[in-house]
Parts: sequence; structure tokens; C-alpha cells
Amino acid sequence: MSDLPYPEHLRTLVEEYLEGLRFGAGGPMDRLGEAMRYSLLAGGKRIRPVLTLATVESLGRPLPPALPTAAALELIHTYSLIHDDLPAIDNDDLRRGKPTCHVVFGEDVAILAGDGLFAEAFSLILERQEGSAGLKVAILAEIARATGVGGVVGGQYIDITSSDAGIVDLRQMHALKTGRLIEAAVVCGGLLGGLNGDSLRPYRAFAAELGVLFQIVDDILDVTGSDQQLGKTPGKDSQAGKATYVTQFGLRRARELADEARVRTEVCLPRLSGRITGLRAVTAYVAGRES
Amino acid sequence: MSDLPYPEHLRTLVEEYLEGLRFGAGGPMDRLGEAMRYSLLAGGKRIRPVLTLATVESLGRPLPPALPTAAALELIHTYSLIHDDLPAIDNDDLRRGKPTCHVVFGEDVAILAGDGLFAEAFSLILERQEGSAGLKVAILAEIARATGVGGVVGGQYIDITSSDAGIVDLRQMHALKTGRLIEAAVVCGGLLGGLNGDSLRPYRAFAAELGVLFQIVDDILDVTGSDQQLGKTPGKDSQAGKATYVTQFGLRRARELADEARVRTEVCLPRLSGRITGLRAVTAYVAGRES
Repeated sequence: MSDLPYPEHLRTLVEEYLEGLRFGAGGPMDRLGEAMRYSLLAGGKRIRPVLTLATVESLGRPLPPALPTAAALELIHTYSLIHDDLPAIDNDDLRRGKPTCHVVFGEDVAILAGDGLFAEAFSLILERQEGSAGLKVAILAEIARATGVGGVVGGQYIDITSSDAGIVDLRQMHALKTGRLIEAAVVCGGLLGGLNGDSLRPYRAFAAELGVLFQIVDDILDVTGSDQQLGKTPGKDSQAGKATYVTQFGLRRARELADEARVRTEVCLPRLSGRITGLRAVTAYVAGRES
Repeated sequence: MSDLPYPEHLRTLVEEYLEGLRFGAGGPMDRLGEAMRYSLLAGGKRIRPVLTLATVESLGRPLPPALPTAAALELIHTYSLIHDDLPAIDNDDLRRGKPTCHVVFGEDVAILAGDGLFAEAFSLILERQEGSAGLKVAILAEIARATGVGGVVGGQYIDITSSDAGIVDLRQMHALKTGRLIEAAVVCGGLLGGLNGDSLRPYRAFAAELGVLFQIVDDILDVTGSDQQLGKTPGKDSQAGKATYVTQFGLRRARELADEARVRTEVCLPRLSGRITGLRAVTAYVAGRES
């Protein structure tokens, strides 16, 4: 399974779409738009939009109409990274192998660039996503919930307070901080592919397991990876006294937990309909990032 | 006209609705929710949601169904204040007469509290606003546009760079930073009252003039007001070398400009349909804040 190549055709679609986005109509906001594009176009595997497209593909639907929603998820992910990296939060100066937004553009501009990406993500779906108003409302509700207190923001909050709190519930923290947006990416793909209600359930289950797998591997890479491999400063989380799978369980047990999570994710795959090669390939990539 | 009392019945409706909101389902996110509520419930005239309700009222529609959207506008306004007050941006420690969010909860929590309020504002409309999916999409599109690069965030960006830029276009900056959300508040009221397309135009025109009036008076108060009157530190903008109506035109001319803006706003009022007492009263309040 780990021989499956990453679905580069999906990543290319995402990348080209993102490169075509402009923020601000010129004039005094040019540099703000530049800061937003700097972080947005810094590369990365584009796992969230690729998951959306892979889900749409598995359901036999055309991909280009799904791009506004897929891209919006990457805008939101980038916004959360920019704010996460700020001096007041993680204080990281390296991300995706490049100096972070606040290092290049200043802290004030970085805060606003994150805020701007969040708002523009919603506009992208509202103004460019094809489909009924009902479909847009379903997509937006999923994304708003995944980014709020019961999602990314809540998870980041638990993360920044985890060094004081002693043992935290790692699974809950990651389910919110990382898992919830990964789940939204798959669910939005399902919605765009014509699913709803109960038919989305196996997709949520798959995405939840994939999110756990993603985070355990991320914690392992934080201590075993080089900054080149990670594109961010390694060892930050463990040095900051933050709770990670490695600090709580040790490296060896964390690797076992990653393997268990991979198996649980793979078990979910056959329950999805259609041609799931793309989703299988993303799973393989997420599981194999350590090697 | 200045004898018209502020529409306290609308403010009370908003206040009670906001007080009923909870963020986070208990547990580890409690203090994040507390930080969000701390800033949200710090008082204020609630001009934006009151404008939404006054517009709905003028069109003869019931008010309670409009509360989720009206409240969402106040969540967004509060989020923009929290981020605006951060040390990296305006570095203000007083807002609405109380220590700012980052002073009480720390900078990291304040950033996340702002992010959380923004996301929860969208969820509020998506999950609690009555009406068709088409109505929700129209409301959300208006709000997303008003908060993005062509709105609040873009205006804040011009504001933080205005001390370097020499003479900036004050009207453009304020149209984005303050005016666009005030416009959205009135337009959302119009949408909730059954208007759309061309019938919204006179409402946009009124709100645009009201936004300009609001900002000129705000700039005058920055130099003439006490911190008790303002609820924030006076003189911040002029001390920071920022472009304001007073720094660019002097206090006397700024007062004339405010008076001209008031007249232009009042001229727009009779073009609106229905019982516009509430909108007239908000205009009177905005114009008269200085006295």
C-alpha cells in the first residue's frame, strides 16, 4: 500500500487554482495581499484540498467545480498556521521551509493576513462555488463548525494551555486542532459529490481516524525529523513542554500507536463507495511521512 | 432631531441575546469561551446589530427572527476590536472602559478569542438564522465581503501603514475599516426585511454616509474625549502618527466635515421606506456623540 504515489494530479489542480487567486484590488492593500499569497503559496502537500478532490473523484464527479471549496480549506489551514506561528503563540520562524509570515512582513501584517485569509475563504465559497444555496450552506456550516471553538481554535487553545495542564486528553486536542478540518475536507468532498446525512457517516469515520494518524506521525516527526524534512523547526513542541504523543508515551509506543491508527484508517476505506484510490494514496502518504 | 432617544428597546434585545450565547461545551475550553464573552459583553451601544434591527423594524418585520444575524455582526465587530487592540497592532489596554482582552487573558488567548468569535459568527447565522438557504447565502456573502481585504481587514491594514504612507485617502480607509461593516449591518437588515438587488441601493447609500459620519466623529473624540467618555485611551491615533480627520484637516475643519456628513446622511433617510424612526435615532446618536 505504501507504494501508492501521492495523487499529484489533484495537488497540481489545487496549486494552479491557488496561484490564480488575488486578494485586494491593487493600491494600498497590495502588500497585505502579498503577505497572504506568500504564506498560501509556500508549498506543502495540500492534504486538505487534495482530500476534498479525492473524495469528489471517488464519487465519480468532475473535479474543477469543487475547486473553490477545496481551495478555501487551504486558505483556512494557512490562516491557522500563520496565527499559530505568531510570537505570542508558538513563536516559530520557519514554516514550509520558509521564514514565517510575521518574520517577513511583521507581526501586525501577519495577524491581518490570517484574518484576511479566513474571510476570503468564506467569500470564495459564497461567490465562486457552483451549486444550490442549500449545498453552500451545508459546506459553510461544516467549515465554520470545524474552525470555531469546537474545532481548530478550540484545539489551538488546549494546545497553548497544555503545558500548564499536566496530562491533557491528546486525542481530544488533536481531534479539534487538526482532525476537525481534515474531517471537514472529506465531508465537503462528500457534499460536493452528492452525499448528505447518513451517507456521509463512513466518510466522517475515515477522516477522524486519518486525523489521529496524521497527528501521531506529526508528533513523532517533531522529534525525529530534520527541519528540511519538516519545513518547520523540529523539537519545538517537546521543548515547549507541550503534550505530544511522544512526551506522553515515549517514541517507541508512539510508533506503535501510529501503526494502530494506520490500521484503523485502512479498515475504514473499503466502507466508502466508488474508486477510492486517491483516498488510499493520501492515507499511505500520511502514514509513511516518517520514512 | 438630536432629541430622538437612542433605540434602547433594540439594544436590549441584542444585549439579552448576546448574554445567552455560550462558546465551547465546557471542559478545557471554558476559559477561551470566557475570554470571548468578556469582550463581547463589555457593553457599548451595539450600533451594528441595532442598525440591523432598526432596518428590519422599518420594513415592518418581526425582530426576534433577525437576532442571530444581528448578533453575528457584533461578534465580528468585537473580534476586530480584540485584534486591533493587540500589542502588535494598536497596543491599547483599554476598550469599552475595561482592560482589553489581551491584558486580562494574555496575548495568545486574545488572538484565539478573536479568531473564535469570527468563526462562531458564521456558525450563528448558518445554524440559527431562520429563512431560506438563499437568504443565508446573501447575508453571509455580504458579511464575508465586508470583513475581508475589501472591508475591515483591508481598512485595518491601511490604518497600520498610514503613518508611513504620508497622506492616505481617509475616506477609502474608513469606508473599509468602519464603513463596510456598518453598511453590511443595514443591508443584512434589508435582506431580512425582504429586500434585494436594486431595492437595497438607498440603504447602502444611507449606510455609507453614516459610516463616514461615524468615523469623523470618532477622530474628533480621539482628541477631545476623555477615556471615560470614549471607553478607550484617547489621543492614541494622533500620538501614533496615524492619519485622522483631525491630523489632516485640523479640529475646526473636521467639525465642519462632520456636520456636512450628518447632513448628507439625513438626506438619505427619507429615501428609505417604512417607519425609519429607529434609523433616524441611530443617526442622531452617531452625530451627537461629541456633545
